[in-house]
Amino acid sequence: MSLKPSWVASANSADCLFPLNNLPCGVYSTAAGPRKLGIALGDQIIDVAKLGDILPVAPEVLSDPRGWNAFMELEPKTWRAFRKALTNAFGDGSPVREDVLVPQMEAKLHMPFQVAEYTDFYAGRHHATNVGTMFRGAENALPPNWLHMPIGYNGRASSVYVSGTDFNRPWGQLKGPDHEKPSFMPSRRFDFELEIGAIVGRASIGPISVSQANENIFGYVLLNDWSARDIQAWEYQPLGPFQAKATATSISPWIVMREALEPFACDTPEREFELLDHLKDCGPMLYDIDLEVYLAPEGQQSSRIARTNYNEMYYSSAQQLAHHATAGSPMNTGDLLGSGTISGPKKENRGSMLELSWGGKEPFELGNGQTRTFLEDGDTLVLRGAAHGNNYKIGFGECVGKVLPALDGPFKGKK
Amino acid sequence: MSLKPSWVASANSADCLFPLNNLPCGVYSTAAGPRKLGIALGDQIIDVAKLGDILPVAPEVLSDPRGWNAFMELEPKTWRAFRKALTNAFGDGSPVREDVLVPQMEAKLHMPFQVAEYTDFYAGRHHATNVGTMFRGAENALPPNWLHMPIGYNGRASSVYVSGTDFNRPWGQLKGPDHEKPSFMPSRRFDFELEIGAIVGRASIGPISVSQANENIFGYVLLNDWSARDIQAWEYQPLGPFQAKATATSISPWIVMREALEPFACDTPEREFELLDHLKDCGPMLYDIDLEVYLAPEGQQSSRIARTNYNEMYYSSAQQLAHHATAGSPMNTGDLLGSGTISGPKKENRGSMLELSWGGKEPFELGNGQTRTFLEDGDTLVLRGAAHGNNYKIGFGECVGKVLPALDGPFKGKK
Repeated sequence: MSLKPSWVASANSADCLFPLNNLPCGVYSTAAGPRKLGIALGDQIIDVAKLGDILPVAPEVLSDPRGWNAFMELEPKTWRAFRKALTNAFGDGSPVREDVLVPQMEAKLHMPFQVAEYTDFYAGRHHATNVGTMFRGAENALPPNWLHMPIGYNGRASSVYVSGTDFNRPWGQLKGPDHEKPSFMPSRRFDFELEIGAIVGRASIGPISVSQANENIFGYVLLNDWSARDIQAWEYQPLGPFQAKATATSISPWIVMREALEPFACDTPEREFELLDHLKDCGPMLYDIDLEVYLAPEGQQSSRIARTNYNEMYYSSAQQLAHHATAGSPMNTGDLLGSGTISGPKKENRGSMLELSWGGKEPFELGNGQTRTFLEDGDTLVLRGAAHGNNYKIGFGECVGKVLPALDGPFKGKK
Repeated sequence: MSLKPSWVASANSADCLFPLNNLPCGVYSTAAGPRKLGIALGDQIIDVAKLGDILPVAPEVLSDPRGWNAFMELEPKTWRAFRKALTNAFGDGSPVREDVLVPQMEAKLHMPFQVAEYTDFYAGRHHATNVGTMFRGAENALPPNWLHMPIGYNGRASSVYVSGTDFNRPWGQLKGPDHEKPSFMPSRRFDFELEIGAIVGRASIGPISVSQANENIFGYVLLNDWSARDIQAWEYQPLGPFQAKATATSISPWIVMREALEPFACDTPEREFELLDHLKDCGPMLYDIDLEVYLAPEGQQSSRIARTNYNEMYYSSAQQLAHHATAGSPMNTGDLLGSGTISGPKKENRGSMLELSWGGKEPFELGNGQTRTFLEDGDTLVLRGAAHGNNYKIGFGECVGKVLPALDGPFKGKK
């Protein structure tokens, strides 16, 4: 697969994240204008509502105030027809239509869709092994169920934010192993988690096959599941993480549709145990996506602290969605499934500070003289991701968030 | 507090669940008519949209297609003014208006509101002690964190159903302690959990006090958090229950507003450890609500299998909501918080079959010659609840669900 040339010149550069092959979905606004659905192309955004009859969907679908939800409810063949229509209209040789383009520099990006429900998985073997080794020793690193199904838990949809939304370090109930009693204080072990999020397009009720689950997935985003490790350590037995994961989950502003990633599809790793039939792989459903994490202390330049690849996962998002549906719960348009932290085999591939600093015991260098164990106030964390073709990339844009100081006494002046 | 007499005669009986003191909120339809917002009074439903200027809210609020959500977003003082206006209009001596009444017998009841997100807690000490004793022994029954904060986990909003919605026994991945490998099969230890659900009315962002949390709670429902114990046993380490709780959560069709329960407010039990300031009790916020559970095998009469009281809880819903908000997650109108299973000190007070049959080891009598350990296909489970005043009750209606057989091969004929 090679670059599809476009009359939008900036889309044809080998460095561009948004060539005609990509066409990711976002929501933007300019100056005082309303929120609109847009498709990134080069350094421009296509105002899809202005394309009218060229596109195979009703106008109201492209003016859904929630974002891309109404479009995602449609059938996968409509998603493909929509991409084909755009590819034709913006391909080299088609009539130039500057009137439907908005420069990305003039646009503010918003949540690309309304999240129905949010689920986070724990499906990267390197991450689960690292964390398990720290907490239970190398012999018991993976729980007994881990190699048989994608372990997941329900998260909080109300705290999923678009890239660029900053937030305060959380307060929480903590108790260190040396403390007699718990205290209520700001988290001191606040962390990021590098993930890819899959978004459910077509809804389903009841068990679905992995193949059907894959077809129901509309697209993917970069995802940072911010995590308070000290809150988690005290709260998570016996019912799992709760307030540790409730502060924020950040996603990239652009949803890359599944079709754009298909040239980069790859297999899950070899299985240690044969999976049960309903979870078995039935084709390549992971993707070769290079991922990077950058950290910038307040007012300073950023340095890369990790690099890995989505193809390191043990379970695909399709397998996660199939497992999610087994007990009968309806899976709805706009459901967001976090892949779980994506680490790799080497130290530089670790997708969280818990792993990078080995539980806080081994501070790591930022490259500018500073070190970190966990995030400090003012730190900005940036996730970047792209699949690399012959002479083009499929990029997600950045997933950025900054940790502001904890609120100064959250109950001051409140009754 | 005593009965407020109404010109709707059926509301004045001492046995009536819906006297003028109650005025619970539901959604109903008749014959081929649309869904409408209604208030139960005696054996009638008040069609609130027909009351017009009598009520202190805009007409569109009372025709929200989601149910009571738009009304719940309003301020607590408006909820009170609304109740006062209804109390005046339907009190003895006010003009009789038969045209705004619909007999309950002619109505079908629907979900009273759209659930934003669903959280389930584990905040009943008798239940947590029983379950902990079974799984970890009497000495380690309560996890170390349990007496310091209400332990909770995020559930699935898409599988919350109104009373009367039947569902199939779930399939799931199971592995008994004697099995070498897990299998995919229908759950064999399917259970109910007797709970009260609190519904968030006013939204909030960031930490809130227990007092504020209490004011933000709109009302309460009966809630059955159906649970597959064998799925849970295999999946729940280390991230908590997931598919075990994904099949169904049933709620009563009527939301009893907080004001109607205020005469029955009571304190939480004495604290073994002083709670941290942000979770401290600041007034009676539990309620004296008698609760009963009935089980009817297919085609047979029901027998009562448990009775307990909501005042047995260790944490109030206000404390749960305050804890839920600590890490910064927005709490939204329509969020549903399950209290956790409500058991009491005696064997007859146990609010789940896991406890009633002590992990399946002690089958219990239904009173008709039959015994049960867990639910069988065709079993109908009914929760009932009411607060008892001098000469009146505040009832919730029934919360009913029937376990249909598991799907016959969920992947048959599917790709």
